[in-house]
Amino acid sequence: MSTTANDDRLARVALSAIGEPGDPRLLDLVTQLGALTVHDRLLGDHDVADLQTDPEARRSATDPERTLTDAARLGMRFVVPGDEEWPAQLDHLAVAAPLQRRGGVPLGLWVRGPVRLDQLAGSVAVVGSRSATTYGADVAAEIAATVAEAGRSVVSGAAFGIDQAGHRGALAGGGATVAVLACGADRVYPAAHRQLLEHIGGYGAVVSEALPGWAPTRLRFLARNRLIAALTAGTVVVEAAVRSGALNTANWATRLNRPLLGVPGPVTSAPSQGVHQLIRSGAATLVTSGADVLEAVGAAGEHLVTEPRGRARSRDRLSTRQQQVLDAVPVATAATVSSIARTAGLGVALVRDELERLAGLGLVEGDQTRWRLAARAQE
Amino acid sequence: MSTTANDDRLARVALSAIGEPGDPRLLDLVTQLGALTVHDRLLGDHDVADLQTDPEARRSATDPERTLTDAARLGMRFVVPGDEEWPAQLDHLAVAAPLQRRGGVPLGLWVRGPVRLDQLAGSVAVVGSRSATTYGADVAAEIAATVAEAGRSVVSGAAFGIDQAGHRGALAGGGATVAVLACGADRVYPAAHRQLLEHIGGYGAVVSEALPGWAPTRLRFLARNRLIAALTAGTVVVEAAVRSGALNTANWATRLNRPLLGVPGPVTSAPSQGVHQLIRSGAATLVTSGADVLEAVGAAGEHLVTEPRGRARSRDRLSTRQQQVLDAVPVATAATVSSIARTAGLGVALVRDELERLAGLGLVEGDQTRWRLAARAQE
Repeated sequence: MSTTANDDRLARVALSAIGEPGDPRLLDLVTQLGALTVHDRLLGDHDVADLQTDPEARRSATDPERTLTDAARLGMRFVVPGDEEWPAQLDHLAVAAPLQRRGGVPLGLWVRGPVRLDQLAGSVAVVGSRSATTYGADVAAEIAATVAEAGRSVVSGAAFGIDQAGHRGALAGGGATVAVLACGADRVYPAAHRQLLEHIGGYGAVVSEALPGWAPTRLRFLARNRLIAALTAGTVVVEAAVRSGALNTANWATRLNRPLLGVPGPVTSAPSQGVHQLIRSGAATLVTSGADVLEAVGAAGEHLVTEPRGRARSRDRLSTRQQQVLDAVPVATAATVSSIARTAGLGVALVRDELERLAGLGLVEGDQTRWRLAARAQE
Repeated sequence: MSTTANDDRLARVALSAIGEPGDPRLLDLVTQLGALTVHDRLLGDHDVADLQTDPEARRSATDPERTLTDAARLGMRFVVPGDEEWPAQLDHLAVAAPLQRRGGVPLGLWVRGPVRLDQLAGSVAVVGSRSATTYGADVAAEIAATVAEAGRSVVSGAAFGIDQAGHRGALAGGGATVAVLACGADRVYPAAHRQLLEHIGGYGAVVSEALPGWAPTRLRFLARNRLIAALTAGTVVVEAAVRSGALNTANWATRLNRPLLGVPGPVTSAPSQGVHQLIRSGAATLVTSGADVLEAVGAAGEHLVTEPRGRARSRDRLSTRQQQVLDAVPVATAATVSSIARTAGLGVALVRDELERLAGLGLVEGDQTRWRLAARAQE
C-alpha cells in the first residue's frame, strides 16, 4: 500500500471518530477536498481529542492505526474509496441530495465476513416492516432465495421481520447475504439476532459505516438505510406500514435512480399500506415473485419473466370456424342447430358437422337437436 | 315521437334480430349510414324472414312493433341513440377498434328498471372473478358501497363472485346498481341470481343489447363486457385470474381511455394474478378502497384521498434541538451524557437539560448518568 493511500485510510478512520455516519456536510467536504485535507484542517486548528469526551472516540481520532489493528483483531477490515474492494456504486451518493439530514459517500465501510463489497454490484435489497406478517415473511424469503439462486447477494438490515426473512431466504437459497448495521459491525443488534449475525459474518458480510463499538441511534439507522439502497442494484419493499423505516430506504433507491419494487398484499393489511402507496404513486413497480425482481434489476434481456398465461384451453386449438360455432352455443339452456347457425352466421349443415366435432372434444353437449356448452368449455 | 324517430327505432329492433350483439361490421354500417338505410338495404334485397330460421328472431325482424309491445308488457323499454335517456358515453364505442370480434355502438339497449341510463355518466364498473375469495368479495362490496354512498351507480354483470358482491354492496350503500346481461334483459342468468336480478330490476336497472328472450353465449358475454366499460366513468377490477373475462372488460376500459383501477391482493392468491399483471404493466392504477376509486373517477379536485399518515408520534412535536438530542440517544444500551453530546454535536450541559425534558415526555429513560431510548420512542 502506498504511503498516500495509507495516510488517506488513517485520515478516514480519524474522521469517522469525529463525524456521525452520513453527516452530509463532512462527507461532502471529503468528496471535494479529500480526506487528508479535511482531516488536517479539522485536527490542525485545535486539539480534537479535547472535544472528544468519549474516550473510545478520542482514541480513534488520535490513534487510527490502533483502531485499525483492534478492528482487524475482531475480524474487521476498513474498506475505503480507492481500494479494489470499494463498491463503486456507493459513489452515486456524492450527487444525491441529503434526506432527513443524512447523505454523502461514506468515509469507509467496516466489513466482517468473506463476501467482498465489490461483488455487490448486482445485489438486491430486501427490506420491510419489523412487524411483518407470516405472509410478508414468506414472500420475502421466497424472493431472497430466488435472487440468491441467481447468484446475486441479498442485502438487508438484520432487523426483525422482513429483514430477517430476507437474510434467511438468501442463506436457504445457498447464496450470499450482507447485513448493513446502524451500530458497529462488531456489535449485535437486535440482541436476539446474535446467531443470525454470526452466520452472516461467517458466510456473507456484516457491514457498517459506524466505528466499531458504536451503538445504534435513530440517525445512524437513517444513515444506514441510504447504504442499503446505494449498495444494491434495486430495492424490494415487502411490507411497510405507512411510517415504516423501510420507506426511507425506498426513498433513497428512488433518489439514486435504482429500481424500486413493491410486493402488494391484502388492502386490509396495515403492513402493506406503505407499499401500496409506493405502487399507487408510481414510485415503485409491483412485483409478485423473485423472478419479477430479477427481471427488474437484471440487465436488459436477462431474466425475462414469462407472464403466467393460465391453463391453456382446448378452445385455443380450434379452427376459426369451430370457434365461431362454439361462440354461438348457449351457455345455459340448449338451442337448436338452426338457432346456433343463425347466431354464428353460418350454414345449418356445416354447423351440425362442427357441433359433432366439438362434442367429440367434450366442448359441447346435446341430443343431436339441441346443444349447449359443456361445463369445461365455460371459461 | 316523430315518425322518423319511430321508424329508426323499429329499424333498430329489426336489425337487432338479424345481427349479433356487438357485430362490428353491422354496427359500423349503422353508425355511418343510419339504421333505416341499413335496414332497407338488408331487408329490401331479399326476404330476411326466410333467412331467420329461429321463429322468435324472424318475428322480431318482420314485426318490430310487436317485439316492442311484448317487451313493454314485460316491463322493458328499448333505449336508442337520440332518446333523452341515451347514455352519450356509449358513442365513444364508434371510434374504438374492435376487440375479439366485438365492437361498435349498440343498436339500442333493452332496459328493465327505474334507473335511467343517462344518469350513468359518473357510474363505476366493479368487475372481477366469478370464483372470488372472501377477501375479494368483501373489498368489492366495500368499494361498491362507498361509490353508491357518493351518489354514483355501480355497474356490473350479475355474475357470481365479484359482480354479485359489487351489486350487493351498492344496494347496501343505498345506491343504484345496474346489471348488464349477455342474455335478454327479461332472462335470468345465472339462474341462482333470480332474486338479485329481481331486486336490481326493481330498484336499479337490468340492461341488455340482446333481444328479449335471447340466450347467453360466449360472444354475447364479450359484447356485454364492452358495454360495462363504455357505460361507466371507470372500471375497478377486484380479483381476476390470468384469463378471467374481467380482463376483457379491463381491456375495453383502456381502449375507451377510461380509468382502469385494480385492487391488489396476496401474491399467493391466483384470483389476484390478473390484477397484479394489470398494475405491473401500468395498465391499471392500484386502489385500496372506495375513496381511492372515487378520487380516480371523480372530476379533478373532487374526492381527494387523504393518504394514511400513520399515528402521529410525540417525536413530531419536538423542537429541532430536541430531535437532534433524541436522534443521538442509543436504541439499545444506555450511553453517557457526554457520549450523547458528542454524537449530537452539542454541548454537554445543553444535552443534559434536553435529556431531562425528553425523559419527562417519556421518550428517553436513564439514571442521570446513562440514557437510552424509551420503548415508545423506538418507531
